[in-house]
Amino acid sequence: MKIGIIGATGYGGAEIARILRSHPYTDECILYSSSDEGTPYHQSYPHLVKLADQTLKPIDIEQIASETDFLFMAAPPGVSSRLTPQLDAYALPVIDLSGDLRLKHQAVYESWYKRESAPGHILEKAVYGLSELNREEIKTAKHIANPGCFPTAVLLGLAPLVKNGLVNESFVIADAKTGVSGAGRKASMGTHFSEINDNFKIYKVNEHQHTPEIEQAVRGWDPAFQPITFSTHLVPMTRGIMATIYLELKESMTGQQLQQFFSDFYQDSYFVRIRESGEFPATKEVYGSNFCDIGVAADERTNRVTIVSVIDNLMKGAAGQAVQNFNIMNGWSEKAGLDFTPIYP
Amino acid sequence: MKIGIIGATGYGGAEIARILRSHPYTDECILYSSSDEGTPYHQSYPHLVKLADQTLKPIDIEQIASETDFLFMAAPPGVSSRLTPQLDAYALPVIDLSGDLRLKHQAVYESWYKRESAPGHILEKAVYGLSELNREEIKTAKHIANPGCFPTAVLLGLAPLVKNGLVNESFVIADAKTGVSGAGRKASMGTHFSEINDNFKIYKVNEHQHTPEIEQAVRGWDPAFQPITFSTHLVPMTRGIMATIYLELKESMTGQQLQQFFSDFYQDSYFVRIRESGEFPATKEVYGSNFCDIGVAADERTNRVTIVSVIDNLMKGAAGQAVQNFNIMNGWSEKAGLDFTPIYP
Amino acid sequence: MKIGIIGATGYGGAEIARILRSHPYTDECILYSSSDEGTPYHQSYPHLVKLADQTLKPIDIEQIASETDFLFMAAPPGVSSRLTPQLDAYALPVIDLSGDLRLKHQAVYESWYKRESAPGHILEKAVYGLSELNREEIKTAKHIANPGCFPTAVLLGLAPLVKNGLVNESFVIADAKTGVSGAGRKASMGTHFSEINDNFKIYKVNEHQHTPEIEQAVRGWDPAFQPITFSTHLVPMTRGIMATIYLELKESMTGQQLQQFFSDFYQDSYFVRIRESGEFPATKEVYGSNFCDIGVAADERTNRVTIVSVIDNLMKGAAGQAVQNFNIMNGWSEKAGLDFTPIYP
Amino acid sequence: MKIGIIGATGYGGAEIARILRSHPYTDECILYSSSDEGTPYHQSYPHLVKLADQTLKPIDIEQIASETDFLFMAAPPGVSSRLTPQLDAYALPVIDLSGDLRLKHQAVYESWYKRESAPGHILEKAVYGLSELNREEIKTAKHIANPGCFPTAVLLGLAPLVKNGLVNESFVIADAKTGVSGAGRKASMGTHFSEINDNFKIYKVNEHQHTPEIEQAVRGWDPAFQPITFSTHLVPMTRGIMATIYLELKESMTGQQLQQFFSDFYQDSYFVRIRESGEFPATKEVYGSNFCDIGVAADERTNRVTIVSVIDNLMKGAAGQAVQNFNIMNGWSEKAGLDFTPIYP
Repeated sequence: MKIGIIGATGYGGAEIARILRSHPYTDECILYSSSDEGTPYHQSYPHLVKLADQTLKPIDIEQIASETDFLFMAAPPGVSSRLTPQLDAYALPVIDLSGDLRLKHQAVYESWYKRESAPGHILEKAVYGLSELNREEIKTAKHIANPGCFPTAVLLGLAPLVKNGLVNESFVIADAKTGVSGAGRKASMGTHFSEINDNFKIYKVNEHQHTPEIEQAVRGWDPAFQPITFSTHLVPMTRGIMATIYLELKESMTGQQLQQFFSDFYQDSYFVRIRESGEFPATKEVYGSNFCDIGVAADERTNRVTIVSVIDNLMKGAAGQAVQNFNIMNGWSEKAGLDFTPIYP
Repeated sequence: MKIGIIGATGYGGAEIARILRSHPYTDECILYSSSDEGTPYHQSYPHLVKLADQTLKPIDIEQIASETDFLFMAAPPGVSSRLTPQLDAYALPVIDLSGDLRLKHQAVYESWYKRESAPGHILEKAVYGLSELNREEIKTAKHIANPGCFPTAVLLGLAPLVKNGLVNESFVIADAKTGVSGAGRKASMGTHFSEINDNFKIYKVNEHQHTPEIEQAVRGWDPAFQPITFSTHLVPMTRGIMATIYLELKESMTGQQLQQFFSDFYQDSYFVRIRESGEFPATKEVYGSNFCDIGVAADERTNRVTIVSVIDNLMKGAAGQAVQNFNIMNGWSEKAGLDFTPIYP
Repeated sequence: MKIGIIGATGYGGAEIARILRSHPYTDECILYSSSDEGTPYHQSYPHLVKLADQTLKPIDIEQIASETDFLFMAAPPGVSSRLTPQLDAYALPVIDLSGDLRLKHQAVYESWYKRESAPGHILEKAVYGLSELNREEIKTAKHIANPGCFPTAVLLGLAPLVKNGLVNESFVIADAKTGVSGAGRKASMGTHFSEINDNFKIYKVNEHQHTPEIEQAVRGWDPAFQPITFSTHLVPMTRGIMATIYLELKESMTGQQLQQFFSDFYQDSYFVRIRESGEFPATKEVYGSNFCDIGVAADERTNRVTIVSVIDNLMKGAAGQAVQNFNIMNGWSEKAGLDFTPIYP
Repeated sequence: MKIGIIGATGYGGAEIARILRSHPYTDECILYSSSDEGTPYHQSYPHLVKLADQTLKPIDIEQIASETDFLFMAAPPGVSSRLTPQLDAYALPVIDLSGDLRLKHQAVYESWYKRESAPGHILEKAVYGLSELNREEIKTAKHIANPGCFPTAVLLGLAPLVKNGLVNESFVIADAKTGVSGAGRKASMGTHFSEINDNFKIYKVNEHQHTPEIEQAVRGWDPAFQPITFSTHLVPMTRGIMATIYLELKESMTGQQLQQFFSDFYQDSYFVRIRESGEFPATKEVYGSNFCDIGVAADERTNRVTIVSVIDNLMKGAAGQAVQNFNIMNGWSEKAGLDFTPIYP
């Protein structure tokens, strides 16, 4: 199978290339980029010298449709809104890692992203690729809107309780923390080493564009949900997301009960690991892997539940989940080419 | 004035020594330690070579009382519980940086700290040294219980609203993040570089001993307060604390109103800097200084308020606030010897 | 094939376990440890929860010899000196990652390591496992002394020129830098996050125990070699070694000639990647992989050559090279189970 | 005294502003910038909110000459070459932190910096501000070329031996490592956090523009000196430089003799601290201070000497030394406003 990757020079695209290099069912990756076309890929990413020496090709949809069997799009915001209508004319299945196709309502997209939305009929058809929750729709989808990094961590943490209607709909606070690679490879003051190192920041307070994505999914499970409070912080590390989620239950559960409930919910989901009661994952414990690790606690003093969910933002939060969806769409094991052991330390 | 420092080999003690080296009203620091006694101080801290070459002395209360005019105690948990009753016999004023004297109730201390409390009459006399809030009591105190690092950040963030009875007493969530120096200098797996670097952890979920300290202070301002949710995370950085505080108001305020309210509340407090509406501090913006910087936001969607409070955990969160209290107790300017500009980057 | 790992709770042992988990020819790993025996492995390493839940077993040579087909030893210094004579009685092939068996002369070992050496006949039989240089001896060896992390980087950088007698034997300076994981998992002041982060140190000046290991190998290639200058620095990062090597040639070569010479020398060595002339590898470009990347430069002004060699200290510098040797000893492809793409960023 | 700072939005300029804020003899800082003019300074540097709220002014030489008593220039390369001839018409004393005025020969500048040089007569008049070595010339200078960060560390390490003619002139290798703030505040791939964190790089191999600056100074002390080998590496930390210098002596000395020799040489230099024999400084031991700490070792095996010199690149390597020169030029104590204790940890 020949795979195309649009946006190969970004971190998401490079991570897909890393994964597919050892994927059992892919023969070749063709890499497309609007920058650096005509140069060998290892010039952008020297760690791939002798491993991925292909020349970067320009983005030409017709050409791509003719020479690839499957397409990953990992382009900056706005590109997919523009290209997807063209792609729609071809049979080529597509997994899109941007935020452009995730929200069902154009007005919501435009209000949070501050840019023009993709056409409504495109948004309608795109299937939200939260692998563990939407397996059936993903299997038959032609176009996947791959979830955002924060929503993946938050939603996998919320799903067991919310889908079962157990959560007080007016009380969810998700305090999220991310490594810097989530901001992409573009140089800016906000990713400058000297500004970030030994520093901890909050950003986009009450304005992060992943907020409506989380709310849309949560309301799909429990339509009574009120707006949630969602905060994002920047951690001086490269990879990793932790979402610390605070909520109140309609009826109280013990930590043990919660742990069992989560374990049961995810018993057929290899990539979600529920920790023992009283144990909580750290971000590095999933580094380089596709796992989402979750710990839960109930606090008798406050009657609140704390859920801690960690992922590698470039793996389960982007490229890893994309390949997981790729596997599901092709009827392969979800683990095919994706069973990386976390690298530690 | 001759100053004694017990626990000079810890990070808190070393930070006091750094500050006092250029303090205008201190003549000499005498350093006491239960380890490394008899060795020159720069052997423990080579950055002080030629700047602080005194020999470390053993901890002998009678001797200390006879040769010092003022005492800082920066010893590990339990030491102050044991030594303070002895110190009580002398006129020597003391600022204690440990958690041993902060809680007024022995049972609460023993339940959270899992160790024996100091005698009740000692706890009763100790004044809680949150400088900006308790100036009057501090002025005349003989024994200060210097606040914990997390409580300082959280309480300075909560005080304006809570003291004025504006906060819904059953809804406060404080999600706190700290640099590693807060764990002290003792080597352990939990402070091992390879375990912490490029990693983000949550710890002591619902069990952090600073929880009752925060609640005790908050209830001093508004006795109706319910238990709060307080979480602590470890950031791969050396210094700095951020507390992201979520709360609901009894009556709603805009971000601008909040900003003005906080500015007014702290208008005579040099070391608390309120950011402009829509701006939020990062931890490094107070690095090496005694400032507590605070940003506030109101979210119309959720009707919740977010308060972001940052400090340098070794300065305003420990040694800096201790010296601020030292200045208050002696009737000097709070800024004396303490007006360090943050180091950036 | 059943594989035993002694010292599984150290970083080197854990890295072997990570690699072998997906190795095509190993069926099972049995983990031995002198600490934590009787506990499940993921308790030591939560990143392996559900991936490696075996119980740690005590170190009993007879038992080990009876239940394993191949043994990796990744124990602290001194353990192998003591255990190898016992192991010698069994047919079990062993790869030893410690420094105990690398030096041929007991006196040299004892002088640099400051501890008792293994018996001379044991040292004699051990084959130095620098995979690319000693393939033939490794193939038939029963006991491999796996090279140290620094020597691997330095020797792969020196081999092409020194083996061909091109280097001025009295002028080699190797200035090496390592990440902190090289110091192992044991907590100490020297690995404390707050002491290492945002800091850069030199250590063991002129006293590093890898010096004689490098010299022994170099003199095996060119007996006229004089003592080299070898320095080691600690970088605030987890993984990675860079050796910057300065030398003078007997007859001068251009950068292009050097690049070609190195490329030819390593043309059959998959895991050594020679960079284009004028390009130099960074440590992260081999992160998590078994590659050694090398860049070379000739300076006309000084008539000196600079060789830059980078490895992941836990992979090519320890566990990776050990598995490479394991593959060679068993007649498999060197790449079997070892073709990890570097993780970047 | 009114002080002007050109280039106040760069890291060097901001560090001068930090120092001068508490300098006893400066009344006011006027800040000039070619970017962000008209905005309050704390908008560029929020850590200075309420501490330095001046508005940034445009760079107008006539205006600057009329309203300031002393000028620091901390502009990017090329600016000083252009502005200094204009400044030459005024009596205003100037300390220039760029590399534009350090080299005496225009051709050398143009060959290493790849840009047009300042006029020859300007270069002639500028005094090289290596404070400890050139105090007399600095006292009466009108225009100081403040040394580069690397040359400061290397030259203070070399001066005692080279000035006394003790070093083999054809053997000096300086392997230098720097934190990222040395690259300035401009965003680029080379300063992107995700590219630098947990990574170690070499750069500008044999091509660093500080090479001729070091050689020019060394040849001023010993004209027989041959070209030196000088390498630069990027450490994942914000501040700090270490130069590890290897050399051979004409006649051998012991480590103790070296230590004594260095101590004597710098006995009247407060800001140079010579470590005890066998002890070596780490970069963080001078963090935020103007100290240069030096350790020395002699190796009997190789007959070579290792000198380890560390500075804070923004302090002794830039702004700190500039203020030290400012103090010298004004006849004040070198320590005036500059006696910062290193911040540790």
